[in-house]
Amino acid sequence: MKVVLELPEEKTKIFRALLQQLKTLAGEQIRSLASLGGHIVSRGSTWDLNPVLAVGNSVLSLASKDGTRQIPLNDEFLAGYENADLKTKEIVVSVLIPYSKKDDFVSAFRQAERRKNALSVVNSGMRVLFKPSTDIIMDLNILYGGIGPTTVSARKSCQRLIGRQWNEQMLDEACKLVLGEISLSPSAPGGKVEYRRTLLVSFLFKFYLEVLYGLNKMYPAKYPDLSKKNMSALGAFHSKAPQGMQTYQDVDPVQPPQDPVGRPIMHQSGINHATGEAVYCNDIRAVDEELFLAVVTSSRAHAKIVTIDVSEAFKVPGVVDVITAEDVPGKNGTEDEQAYAKDEVICVGQIVCAVVAESAVQAKRGVEKVKIEYEDREPILTIEDAIKHNSYFGKEKKIEQGNIEEGFKSADEIIEGEIHIGGQEHFYLETNSVLVVPRGEDNEMDVHVSTQDAARVQVLVASALDVHSSKIMCHTKHVGGAFGGKVTKPAIFAVVAAVAANKTGRPIRFILERDEDMLITGGRHPFYGKYKVGFTNDGRITAADIESYINAGCTLDESELVIEYVVLKTDNAYKIPNLRVRGRACKTNLPSNTAFRGFGFPQSGLFTESWIATVATQTGLPHEKIREINMYKGVNLTPFKEELDATNLVKCWKECMEKSDYYSRKTAVEEFNKQNYWKKKGIAIIPMKFSVGFNATLYHQAAALVHIYTDGSVLLTHGGIELGQGIHTKMLQIASRELKVPLSYVHFCETSTITVPNAIVTAGSIGSDVNGKAVQNACQILRKRLEPIINKNPKGKWEDWITEAYEQSVSLSATGYFRGYVVNMNWDTGEGQAFPYFVFGAACSEVEIDCLTGDHKNIRTDIVMDACFSINPAVDIGQIEGAFVQGIGLYTMEEIKFSPEGEQYTLGPDTYKIPAVCDIPEQLRVYLLPNSRNPIAIYSSKGMGEAGLFLGCSVFFAIWDAVAAVRKERGLTRIFTLNSPLTVERIRMACTDQFTEMIAKDKPGTYKPWAIDIA
Amino acid sequence: MKVVLELPEEKTKIFRALLQQLKTLAGEQIRSLASLGGHIVSRGSTWDLNPVLAVGNSVLSLASKDGTRQIPLNDEFLAGYENADLKTKEIVVSVLIPYSKKDDFVSAFRQAERRKNALSVVNSGMRVLFKPSTDIIMDLNILYGGIGPTTVSARKSCQRLIGRQWNEQMLDEACKLVLGEISLSPSAPGGKVEYRRTLLVSFLFKFYLEVLYGLNKMYPAKYPDLSKKNMSALGAFHSKAPQGMQTYQDVDPVQPPQDPVGRPIMHQSGINHATGEAVYCNDIRAVDEELFLAVVTSSRAHAKIVTIDVSEAFKVPGVVDVITAEDVPGKNGTEDEQAYAKDEVICVGQIVCAVVAESAVQAKRGVEKVKIEYEDREPILTIEDAIKHNSYFGKEKKIEQGNIEEGFKSADEIIEGEIHIGGQEHFYLETNSVLVVPRGEDNEMDVHVSTQDAARVQVLVASALDVHSSKIMCHTKHVGGAFGGKVTKPAIFAVVAAVAANKTGRPIRFILERDEDMLITGGRHPFYGKYKVGFTNDGRITAADIESYINAGCTLDESELVIEYVVLKTDNAYKIPNLRVRGRACKTNLPSNTAFRGFGFPQSGLFTESWIATVATQTGLPHEKIREINMYKGVNLTPFKEELDATNLVKCWKECMEKSDYYSRKTAVEEFNKQNYWKKKGIAIIPMKFSVGFNATLYHQAAALVHIYTDGSVLLTHGGIELGQGIHTKMLQIASRELKVPLSYVHFCETSTITVPNAIVTAGSIGSDVNGKAVQNACQILRKRLEPIINKNPKGKWEDWITEAYEQSVSLSATGYFRGYVVNMNWDTGEGQAFPYFVFGAACSEVEIDCLTGDHKNIRTDIVMDACFSINPAVDIGQIEGAFVQGIGLYTMEEIKFSPEGEQYTLGPDTYKIPAVCDIPEQLRVYLLPNSRNPIAIYSSKGMGEAGLFLGCSVFFAIWDAVAAVRKERGLTRIFTLNSPLTVERIRMACTDQFTEMIAKDKPGTYKPWAIDIA
Repeated sequence: MKVVLELPEEKTKIFRALLQQLKTLAGEQIRSLASLGGHIVSRGSTWDLNPVLAVGNSVLSLASKDGTRQIPLNDEFLAGYENADLKTKEIVVSVLIPYSKKDDFVSAFRQAERRKNALSVVNSGMRVLFKPSTDIIMDLNILYGGIGPTTVSARKSCQRLIGRQWNEQMLDEACKLVLGEISLSPSAPGGKVEYRRTLLVSFLFKFYLEVLYGLNKMYPAKYPDLSKKNMSALGAFHSKAPQGMQTYQDVDPVQPPQDPVGRPIMHQSGINHATGEAVYCNDIRAVDEELFLAVVTSSRAHAKIVTIDVSEAFKVPGVVDVITAEDVPGKNGTEDEQAYAKDEVICVGQIVCAVVAESAVQAKRGVEKVKIEYEDREPILTIEDAIKHNSYFGKEKKIEQGNIEEGFKSADEIIEGEIHIGGQEHFYLETNSVLVVPRGEDNEMDVHVSTQDAARVQVLVASALDVHSSKIMCHTKHVGGAFGGKVTKPAIFAVVAAVAANKTGRPIRFILERDEDMLITGGRHPFYGKYKVGFTNDGRITAADIESYINAGCTLDESELVIEYVVLKTDNAYKIPNLRVRGRACKTNLPSNTAFRGFGFPQSGLFTESWIATVATQTGLPHEKIREINMYKGVNLTPFKEELDATNLVKCWKECMEKSDYYSRKTAVEEFNKQNYWKKKGIAIIPMKFSVGFNATLYHQAAALVHIYTDGSVLLTHGGIELGQGIHTKMLQIASRELKVPLSYVHFCETSTITVPNAIVTAGSIGSDVNGKAVQNACQILRKRLEPIINKNPKGKWEDWITEAYEQSVSLSATGYFRGYVVNMNWDTGEGQAFPYFVFGAACSEVEIDCLTGDHKNIRTDIVMDACFSINPAVDIGQIEGAFVQGIGLYTMEEIKFSPEGEQYTLGPDTYKIPAVCDIPEQLRVYLLPNSRNPIAIYSSKGMGEAGLFLGCSVFFAIWDAVAAVRKERGLTRIFTLNSPLTVERIRMACTDQFTEMIAKDKPGTYKPWAIDIA
Repeated sequence: MKVVLELPEEKTKIFRALLQQLKTLAGEQIRSLASLGGHIVSRGSTWDLNPVLAVGNSVLSLASKDGTRQIPLNDEFLAGYENADLKTKEIVVSVLIPYSKKDDFVSAFRQAERRKNALSVVNSGMRVLFKPSTDIIMDLNILYGGIGPTTVSARKSCQRLIGRQWNEQMLDEACKLVLGEISLSPSAPGGKVEYRRTLLVSFLFKFYLEVLYGLNKMYPAKYPDLSKKNMSALGAFHSKAPQGMQTYQDVDPVQPPQDPVGRPIMHQSGINHATGEAVYCNDIRAVDEELFLAVVTSSRAHAKIVTIDVSEAFKVPGVVDVITAEDVPGKNGTEDEQAYAKDEVICVGQIVCAVVAESAVQAKRGVEKVKIEYEDREPILTIEDAIKHNSYFGKEKKIEQGNIEEGFKSADEIIEGEIHIGGQEHFYLETNSVLVVPRGEDNEMDVHVSTQDAARVQVLVASALDVHSSKIMCHTKHVGGAFGGKVTKPAIFAVVAAVAANKTGRPIRFILERDEDMLITGGRHPFYGKYKVGFTNDGRITAADIESYINAGCTLDESELVIEYVVLKTDNAYKIPNLRVRGRACKTNLPSNTAFRGFGFPQSGLFTESWIATVATQTGLPHEKIREINMYKGVNLTPFKEELDATNLVKCWKECMEKSDYYSRKTAVEEFNKQNYWKKKGIAIIPMKFSVGFNATLYHQAAALVHIYTDGSVLLTHGGIELGQGIHTKMLQIASRELKVPLSYVHFCETSTITVPNAIVTAGSIGSDVNGKAVQNACQILRKRLEPIINKNPKGKWEDWITEAYEQSVSLSATGYFRGYVVNMNWDTGEGQAFPYFVFGAACSEVEIDCLTGDHKNIRTDIVMDACFSINPAVDIGQIEGAFVQGIGLYTMEEIKFSPEGEQYTLGPDTYKIPAVCDIPEQLRVYLLPNSRNPIAIYSSKGMGEAGLFLGCSVFFAIWDAVAAVRKERGLTRIFTLNSPLTVERIRMACTDQFTEMIAKDKPGTYKPWAIDIA
């Protein structure tokens, strides 16, 4: 790279184009390991360097024992598959990349679903050679990747353009020629067909402008400056390293320095996480006789199982047994979900049977040998299908307030619309993992499992083995991310493994590969919403009639609860005087969708903000005004009649307006947009009311067990599970405060059903809240027991008091308990106290989009969150930031694709993109609202686990704002719908222009699409 | 054997002699595996068949590739060592055992320390061939085993007796000739020199009589019947399979059938113990990277460590590291005892360093390669030495009541004497075992350990590693016997292993071999007592002045407590109006002696009963009368002023008298003894007062943790450890009663420091008592929480109530606690409440002894025990029976031998004999005293763990009674001392006769004995 920059620019245009691709090609780690030779020879369609090398007329030097030879690295070479024109045992010795000539212009383009560490959707290398000192094309080369199975060349089009001048007519013809020469089937693998077609010409347009720009730079006298409008088409986004700012209130100066509550204590496992010392389930040492388990999953969305032939699997060396539903001594899963499919499969990826073998490789080989004969049945896959077939779980959930008919009557205007919101993979770093170790007597089993709900694992394993729960010991130390995805499913995986352990009498390790995990488990529910909203011309919403549908997949799982939450939380921050909300969970033949951070609210909240935005657009009023006008203020009732004090909602909103400098930045955005035709900025501010916890008191119960050992050290355990969210750190802080000992005296080891029985799932943002109360209770009991001893020897040390207590036979062990927040929701009346309390927040985001590629860049986000008295601001802000970024993923990047047969395509990080560092706003500022208290929760804190996720939609609406600016400038329809996620594809296609108009459109129904829309 | 019995007797005399030896040679398992050829060729001195084969002129057929040959199996062959006259690769093909002739007489003799499964001390084969139809000796062969390093022959003596008649003159000369020909050095390995010399002629005498008996049977006209007196010398003891009888009160018929308390429920692990499924420490599955640890122990009793050279050990393949005191990051053991010896060793067997390797074999090879250079220092080994050097731990312990001087003044007679009581190995089936598994983060370690005191292990490991106790998780599931031997030492072993685990970062398995365990650990304290007792002629003891010494070994350990207990319990069942008891713990260079079932009382009780017996002998009154006269009656004060209600003591005594039919059997014994000169029976009845628990309230605290899971199953844990004594079974019974659920609903998994912190050692017969109270407490708390739910739905099932409780957020987990019995003992005043309560009992035993060999047979024992309301009579009677038999071992068989250098010889079951089935009284009857209650303890029960052991001394005193009968008949001194254990040697030598008179005696001090007396 240094050499390239030292050489004259005119000689190094090819190199410079290569370097540009290298900036975003894969990530640093992959680039450090990969080789150019491999890149070239393997000739993947989306390999970014090959088109550039080919247009640059590079030459490959090959060597074998028969001698050396040279072949051109051209479009013909690239049209071959791997090794097509290489001899056996021939290797690439070097690649000759020629210097460019003076009148050469070389450009490289790529657009991926994520800016870094992602394969390009389409890439291109383009080169033109002019007659010296003219703009007459002497030679032209255009190659595209990502269009077909190999790199394709627009060779004919280029031939026909030789001799032409570099002007708009040429561009226009070039576009038509290229679109004619390079066709993409409507059923092309990878989908995004129209987008990819558009990129062919969008890139060509960019090349056209880059060359014009280059000609101007070389011959300024001869060629005019690019217009401002066209200048805005040049360049691609590059992100700077994001900068964070965290603002929170310091603890009261009178608080004793030893008391860690309210201080930003580092996550207790932070260092272990960073060094890799943390022992996750699969890091547990192998034990003697351990077997590995691998599963055979259904390849059909809906089918009868005719036969399972395991005979060949048994012939694989190392295979010990094959486990099927027949081997379950007790209950095969839950009423709702089978652990091993029996008779029938109801989705692709359902576990049919399992192979246990001495090693993972052997187990997987065994899996390949199991033959299952199916008899296909008709599947239902999409929400549309489900509605058509009336295929639902449970009854419709409904709440209603006011008089909806009257509300519409008092409206000046009524609009109707709909939105589709895609699902989301949990993409926890640690895939589902279970290690089951039979203890060898009394049917006892240790189950090490990565779960949010150890008690559920215990109950299901016990019932599957037909033993008492007291025989099953579940242990969870670290969970490498869960996000709701480890609420229900780990228990099924544990049953799968435990049945094998029971049958073989041997320990079983069952660790899912990433692709298996993504295949078998569901994620966030895809959502479809229909609305009818009435409003006055001054922006007051008078009525809304809302229908929501979620794609639940093949089992009930948590879907009934999710649709309840969707319905209950639809109002978000808005008081809609006349409101009807109805929701249904659709039963389909997809892997069952389940709990996911936010639990329905990220979908229903986006839906609401979406029609709020539409109302704003329709009225022509600024979006933030419509939000303000309709926002809850003061003390209110929710639509289900729960009291709600919105004071802090308004405070957050105002603080966010202020901290983000909203109005002046909005003006700046408008100014930018006037100057830049092909790039647009957008800004949006979104308020949030988020309810914490569950709508049943039962689910808030929590327990703790605290021991003080004779050396004064404290062992703390509680029912909560460490998912990375820092719950244990907070619990240690609480114990430290309550016992009045330094934090270092308190240790947490693991969550287990041996120490705390019947613990409630760690979810709903409520884990630290309720377990904190239980820990507090236990510590207060202990401290009270110690009081007489302390009072007698007030100057003594902690260790002295403990020794004395021991000698006086004072118990140094206590259970702590919290019965839970009282809530009750009556679905017959649609009224009740559904949630313990609400978290308020607001976020303002600013983005910039590239109208030609659909790329966008997150410039800045300001989040104000009403965290009240944060027990640990470092941990809480970490949760807010993490959730927010996961929200960005949900709303702008992460896209699950299913085939028309219900088979998921997106089974790994190469096809499914979660946000990377490049997607964090360059400025991410989090403020905790000062001087706020929440008397109901421990130390006046609030649960922060989920709320931040929804605020990721401020980015969605900032993009909406940018797209609206595009459409306004181009005179397109004012009202438009943007579905989620707002991927590069959706952004590009929403920015209608001559190029999107130019491409071929395929009539739906005339072809079989590669993927279907399940939302 | 069938063939032998079918052939005429005269042809099969050699076979019959062989069969007789085979009855007791080794055990069935060994006999099933061993081969006659191996027995013959290996020619061990104590191999019992060889002398018989040799006197029978057997012939060995040998084969090798050079051909076959035959050699005589005679005394010359047997004088050779293994392979002496065999060629390389020559094997024994067959043994020709000739038929005997008509006038042949063949006898076989053996006497071992235990009747079965023991090598003989001395054995013999003898054969005489008479001139047909005469008693003129034509040929004579006498061989002895167990005398020298090989079988020895009295060939010269035999030669000289040819031609002699078979009469008393011949016998007398034969004895002199044999004793002249076969000499045994006073320093001979194996010791027991005078006993062995005596057996030479005792066996000869038996042979003489057997031949006379045979001659009479063949030629009744020619040879007279044997006299009744001499008839009693014939035959050896054979035990029948013991028959047990257990009598206890049934539960109240109104007790609900589901309530298991008071019923003889089987030990909850009984089946697992029997099948081998129970997972002991070393049964825990190996984990990845695990290393095995073996220790290098001191070969010197007292020495400075000059150098430790580990270089050669590191060269052994598989050796990973060598661990020394330098590697201990924190505290190297306790103040009292080092884990790894530093600078100095203070006993043979002290751990100096440890080798860790990939396998046990490699670790042991490594151990062999470690070279330690010592600089010897003078050791103190015996109590005598210690007294001489004033080498004690702590201060003298003393209690005194009445006026000792006045007491002696009012006596008619005063006698003085002393006793030596040997120590005892714990001989738990499971040797000490530790498995330490570092968890891989935060310095956490799991320690699986066979211990009575998991908290102690935790504390010591934590302090050794310099971490908080909260990081060390100790687990104990089953302990395969402990008997006090796993109170202190396992923590040291755990430290040894944990330091290695800490240094290597790998799991460490440290399992002691039997010989290592016996070498390294101490046992029951050897005891030396001196008494001066005054009494009236009618048997009232007026005063006793008692001095007791125990050999504590090289560290304090529990010895100060043991000597306190010795002193406090000296009175046993007797009210001695004027009493002074003093005790000292002697510091010597032996492995440290420690807690052992009974904790000093088995020694001090035997001591007391011994001088009571001497008083009886002196007064000429029946022993039981002296015991009755001096026994506590009604409400009393102990010598340390604790209140004592002796009502049940007297009840037990009377019940025992009655159940055993004492007086009529005593008459029968006397009648038998009149008829049998060379065999004697004896009978004795012994009362007991045994105090339960510890003399500090602190040590009675106990805790439990009880969970009810949502399926209604109950997981119970508490601080007590299962040592095989059935504590968990009782705890499950208690939980079942208190919660009112079937026993099958309650499960116990393991004792661990994670569930119950700071648990007190399981010892002192108090484990079930105090933990039972804690379990009761926890269950009552839970039941109380459930009451409102039960009251609301009284007809509901348990599962319904639990579901309801869960739904109502009622905590289903509770800790239970018991603060402990209030006790206090003031050693300054010698007064206090030393014990929570007393257990009373009595036992009557009858034995028969063989005066010529010292063998004895336990005929019948009746035990009456005041168990009050037994929670589980099956378990309690099991404890009584087991302890009683262990008492038999202590008092009659088990003998630890040390070399003059302080090296223990008795390191395995071949040299150290615990009771076998043959040692259980043929009739063993246990009665629990009916209608007795102990309000202080749970359900009015009493702790039964230790009390029975002392009652083993009823066998001791029955033997004493038999020996007294011998001595009385023979006109020997009335007063005699019998030290413990009353082995075959001691019994034989106490029955002074012409044979004991005949042998050579060595003057002490003129030779170096093989072993020393440490008591």
